[in-house]
Amino acid sequence: MSELWRLDIKGAAAGLRSGNFTPKELLRETLARIAEVQPLLNLYLGLREDSAHAEARAAGKRHARGQPFGPLDGIPVAVKGNIAVAGLPNTAGIPGRRSSVAEANAFCVERLRTAGAVILGTFNLHEAALGATTDNASFGRTGNPHDPTRTPGGSSGASGAAVAAFACFAALGTDTMGSVRIPAAYCGTVGLKASYGLVGTCGIVPLSWRLDHVGPLTRSVPDAALLLDAMIAYDETDPLSRRPPSDHRWPPDFSRKMTGLRLARISNFGSVDCQPAVLAAFEEACEVFRDLGCEFVDLELPGFDPAAGRRAGFLLSEVDGAMEHEAELEQPGYFSEATHALLLFGRSCPSIKLARAERLLGHIAGVAARVFDRADAVVAPTVAHAAFPFGAPVPVNQGDLTGLANFANWPALSVPMGVDEDGMPLGLQVMTATWQEALALEIGAAFEAAAGDGRSTPPAMPFRPVHA
Amino acid sequence: MSELWRLDIKGAAAGLRSGNFTPKELLRETLARIAEVQPLLNLYLGLREDSAHAEARAAGKRHARGQPFGPLDGIPVAVKGNIAVAGLPNTAGIPGRRSSVAEANAFCVERLRTAGAVILGTFNLHEAALGATTDNASFGRTGNPHDPTRTPGGSSGASGAAVAAFACFAALGTDTMGSVRIPAAYCGTVGLKASYGLVGTCGIVPLSWRLDHVGPLTRSVPDAALLLDAMIAYDETDPLSRRPPSDHRWPPDFSRKMTGLRLARISNFGSVDCQPAVLAAFEEACEVFRDLGCEFVDLELPGFDPAAGRRAGFLLSEVDGAMEHEAELEQPGYFSEATHALLLFGRSCPSIKLARAERLLGHIAGVAARVFDRADAVVAPTVAHAAFPFGAPVPVNQGDLTGLANFANWPALSVPMGVDEDGMPLGLQVMTATWQEALALEIGAAFEAAAGDGRSTPPAMPFRPVHA
Repeated sequence: MSELWRLDIKGAAAGLRSGNFTPKELLRETLARIAEVQPLLNLYLGLREDSAHAEARAAGKRHARGQPFGPLDGIPVAVKGNIAVAGLPNTAGIPGRRSSVAEANAFCVERLRTAGAVILGTFNLHEAALGATTDNASFGRTGNPHDPTRTPGGSSGASGAAVAAFACFAALGTDTMGSVRIPAAYCGTVGLKASYGLVGTCGIVPLSWRLDHVGPLTRSVPDAALLLDAMIAYDETDPLSRRPPSDHRWPPDFSRKMTGLRLARISNFGSVDCQPAVLAAFEEACEVFRDLGCEFVDLELPGFDPAAGRRAGFLLSEVDGAMEHEAELEQPGYFSEATHALLLFGRSCPSIKLARAERLLGHIAGVAARVFDRADAVVAPTVAHAAFPFGAPVPVNQGDLTGLANFANWPALSVPMGVDEDGMPLGLQVMTATWQEALALEIGAAFEAAAGDGRSTPPAMPFRPVHA
Repeated sequence: MSELWRLDIKGAAAGLRSGNFTPKELLRETLARIAEVQPLLNLYLGLREDSAHAEARAAGKRHARGQPFGPLDGIPVAVKGNIAVAGLPNTAGIPGRRSSVAEANAFCVERLRTAGAVILGTFNLHEAALGATTDNASFGRTGNPHDPTRTPGGSSGASGAAVAAFACFAALGTDTMGSVRIPAAYCGTVGLKASYGLVGTCGIVPLSWRLDHVGPLTRSVPDAALLLDAMIAYDETDPLSRRPPSDHRWPPDFSRKMTGLRLARISNFGSVDCQPAVLAAFEEACEVFRDLGCEFVDLELPGFDPAAGRRAGFLLSEVDGAMEHEAELEQPGYFSEATHALLLFGRSCPSIKLARAERLLGHIAGVAARVFDRADAVVAPTVAHAAFPFGAPVPVNQGDLTGLANFANWPALSVPMGVDEDGMPLGLQVMTATWQEALALEIGAAFEAAAGDGRSTPPAMPFRPVHA
């Protein structure tokens, strides 16, 4: 076997089950792939080769004892660098945390371990998860596999880049205003944020406790469902873990037909200045859904201005982040200058300004809930543009299309929807009512299957030249 | 007929239906009663006698035309002075709003009108709904009918006092941290706060948009259900109005048996310094429930300190109030000195301190939701003490037992549970999971019926001497 790292999780699990290769072989090839791309892309902050080998061996032994491989058994995965993996630095991309070593696994990591996954290590990220370029002043830039001179997005930048570059089979990221979905869109991977509290966030360095989610980045929608399935668990010790309602539909039914499904387009998103290629790809995506039998409704959310929402959400994140890191704000050099300035801005924000932002977000959540009186799901581009070069100005509207799902507590899935004129990936977002993650995944999988490989295939290696 | 004002709503409606008296007669007697008690208690800020007469005539005419009386048809009710009644001052107890006249009815008033209720006017309240004595520097003190030298509680102080003094058949109050339930407990009436957003708050001067509720004060639990039933309606124009889930159980079934119902006692409330009479009455109330066949479970909410929760909720209210009244804070004399100081405290609060209070409340809400894994409802005293004399120090723990239901979004009902050594009423609180207002009312009604008149009868007139 060769290039086993090219498989998706379903393919790798099938190979393991049929005995085509062993967990050890799968890991060895993945580590070789990592060695190849790490110098080019700067993906991993921490690698745990010895422990991963031990986990792969253990998976092989379980199988040898007659235990069938579960869907994640022996599958090498890795997590964003703000998620605790015992024995690895848990930096959150913050220079002052460079030598902080996690003593225990985060709840989500423990869940993946329980499912038999092999944990490779932790990824680079945007400092403090507060930003979306992964141009980290202390831990370096992570390159976009489609063009390493460009950002992979963020804050889970290396999570997206590593999945696209085949440097793991799946990654975990965290998403406060789009930090899983933005890198998924920029890197051409799938990214999912489920309902708030469905996956416990214990062991994750918080940015904003009320907006933070942990979610998977994968090379296919069914793979994202596998990761989420392993992580769904009520964490009795975590006040923010939420039990889904008794009628929670899970897992998704990927044979579900899309006929008659009502998809909403939110007219308020018209105010977001989108790259023409994004608009064109989105129209094409809508055509795919029409061909699948979906109906479209155009809905307006009264009083919802995406830019104002993003500003309010960002302010909330800055204040909450300043609260979480209050003591460290006083330590010189603990943060980069840029991050320090954002957190100080949060700290110095008048309480009334914060309260006004919170009221705005509360109103947005209220009107957003009404969308599902008239539609089953919402579709939109994930980001208004493709990945931009490092050093170029950061578009202010990076989170304009993603923040709504955090404010409204909508599950939100980003699926590749083609490329722009430079060959850079673009993302389609599928959003549903709270607790309807199964539906979002079903819609995303139907799109993925119908849109075909041309939209979702990650880049070949070596990274193809762009602007050529 | 005489003393028609002594009836509860069910009794009055039965009398109207059977033709024993007319809406006009019912109104006339109620107005006479108001004339009698208003000078003693200072209940009403605004009375609309002419309009009320017209509404009573209209109710009579509808009936004369053959339309049967609905449960609120022709019933005289009134509302707290922060709820808009077209043509009356909508002061919210704030001196600077003395001459602000409401142009339209609040959503809840419109709902009561639609149900045929006769709107008498608006009540005195604690200034800006920010406090619980109704010792209003600009609009005067409202006396407790059980002892006019004592507070009726607040902020819906006159709403509770008027119901207890028979100066209306029911009242509306608003409840941000207990402002319906505290006066209900102090005055010996029933008070209900339903799930957040079940009753729209449009047309109410906000204190904290995220904690504010509107709810009824009545002389019996079934009466509170009638008021709520009239007000439940989804307000499409209000982003904070929430549609209950499709399996929302409503109305209550007052024939429901209590056998086997699991009632939780929250051990964390043990830290609240309660008057011995409150503790004794609560134990007696629990005996009543045991006799009804209920089981008790003692539960601890991890990390919940009632005093810390109250402080966080109060801070939130001060900041949100300062935001709502930001411009007016600059106008000399707009607020009393005391209220001005509270709002300035909110305005000057560092954003991180606000964020920390919000995180605490978020954690409380998270652990509170788990109570209903092991219990069907929660019971507790409503307040730690009975009404205290004007001029005495205000107990800091006034809201320690009521705030939880606002933070956790629990429906909460206060029912009279006896009197203390001075004959002052005490309140029992019944709380349930979000959207389970029917269950709270069923439990409250079962208690009310089993505990008998001795616990719930409002005071005789003239007000009986206390400390005699």
